Amino acid sequence: MAENMFLFWGSGSIPCWKPMIVLEEKGFGGYKNKLITFSNKEHKGEDVLKLNPRGQVPTFKDGDIVVNESNAICEYLECTYTDKGTQLIPTDKAKRARVLQRMHEAAANMQQKLVLDLLYYFFQTKEEDRKEEEVAKKVEAAKEELDRWEAYLGETKAFVAGPDFSMADVWFYPFIAFSVRMGLELEKFPNMKAYYDKVTARPSVQKSWPPHWKEEPAKFSPFKGRI
Amino acid sequence: MAENMFLFWGSGSIPCWKPMIVLEEKGFGGYKNKLITFSNKEHKGEDVLKLNPRGQVPTFKDGDIVVNESNAICEYLECTYTDKGTQLIPTDKAKRARVLQRMHEAAANMQQKLVLDLLYYFFQTKEEDRKEEEVAKKVEAAKEELDRWEAYLGETKAFVAGPDFSMADVWFYPFIAFSVRMGLELEKFPNMKAYYDKVTARPSVQKSWPPHWKEEPAKFSPFKGRI
Repeated sequence: MAENMFLFWGSGSIPCWKPMIVLEEKGFGGYKNKLITFSNKEHKGEDVLKLNPRGQVPTFKDGDIVVNESNAICEYLECTYTDKGTQLIPTDKAKRARVLQRMHEAAANMQQKLVLDLLYYFFQTKEEDRKEEEVAKKVEAAKEELDRWEAYLGETKAFVAGPDFSMADVWFYPFIAFSVRMGLELEKFPNMKAYYDKVTARPSVQKSWPPHWKEEPAKFSPFKGRI
Repeated sequence: MAENMFLFWGSGSIPCWKPMIVLEEKGFGGYKNKLITFSNKEHKGEDVLKLNPRGQVPTFKDGDIVVNESNAICEYLECTYTDKGTQLIPTDKAKRARVLQRMHEAAANMQQKLVLDLLYYFFQTKEEDRKEEEVAKKVEAAKEELDRWEAYLGETKAFVAGPDFSMADVWFYPFIAFSVRMGLELEKFPNMKAYYDKVTARPSVQKSWPPHWKEEPAKFSPFKGRI
């Protein structure tokens, strides 16, 4: 089946990484793909635009079926190939409820508080224009968010929605890996540290690890010493 | 089953309205509920916090199962009660792919471009501090987004993901209803106008219509004459 699949993706993009982990977990490693370069605006290229008029990655095709939104691809793959590879959304009612809750909790909060509010402030505001009180408020919100997940992991002693790796981890973990690259020191979050090491070692995560992260360190680390 | 369900909700909150439409569509009208008042900070009350430490609504319980994130409640209800009431996520692979795509496309873009970027700019920036070029850029992005959906509706001539009402409409329509309340003139979007009238008339939407919208007009209408 993997030979009928095609993914356009960018290295280090969290929206791309999520379905890439799912593809590996479901046993579709070896799917056809094209790594696009954001700096060359290849996501606005004709081949992407033909399938995705928004000109964004991930852009994904499974035979004739096109699905482009990151979370939609994840759910499409799980619902369509439920019995293949790792079951990422449980069928048991209570377990599924917990996985769905943590999936959407990660989607709603991690992106907003760690990436859009905090990290983008560093990206988009020149050092001389940054207000320390603004930074402090955003750091506080990011910390509070991380503390919540640290507590969840303290309860499960395993993955974010229970004893098994699930779609909630697919939607949560890339934000932690990205934050670590941005200087987050996990020593202050011991449950998350153990979790990070365990998930990082998964073959699905290793196979989909952003290639440019392997090659070069991050150019700056705004989270270091702050969170 | 509805007698085992309990929802804390706020009037006019899009995250609350989505699962409320689902509850009606799935035939759970009459579920127990409590309308909280944001201005009294009732979402930070003990009864909500006990179930939802984030102190947010919607907060939802189905027997012993607690699900709080808006999108998670929607998916939980559909997956758990697939055969009850309206089927909101199709089982056919291609149809499901389209519904998932439009669900997440609405979640990712409508909230960001219409609410967070544009509307909050009006809410949070005093009139004398607003920059016309900033407003113009945000209005342009909101218009472009609406044009996309206008085109989708031109293709389907029915609902946003095809001929049938689906979860994609649940995740999309409240943004349109909210925008209309904020002054959006649908005359410029004829497909969306027909769609708005049709969905507004659905019993599930009528039964869950924000009560304070019936009682009082919006205090201001920033979209009027702009989009």
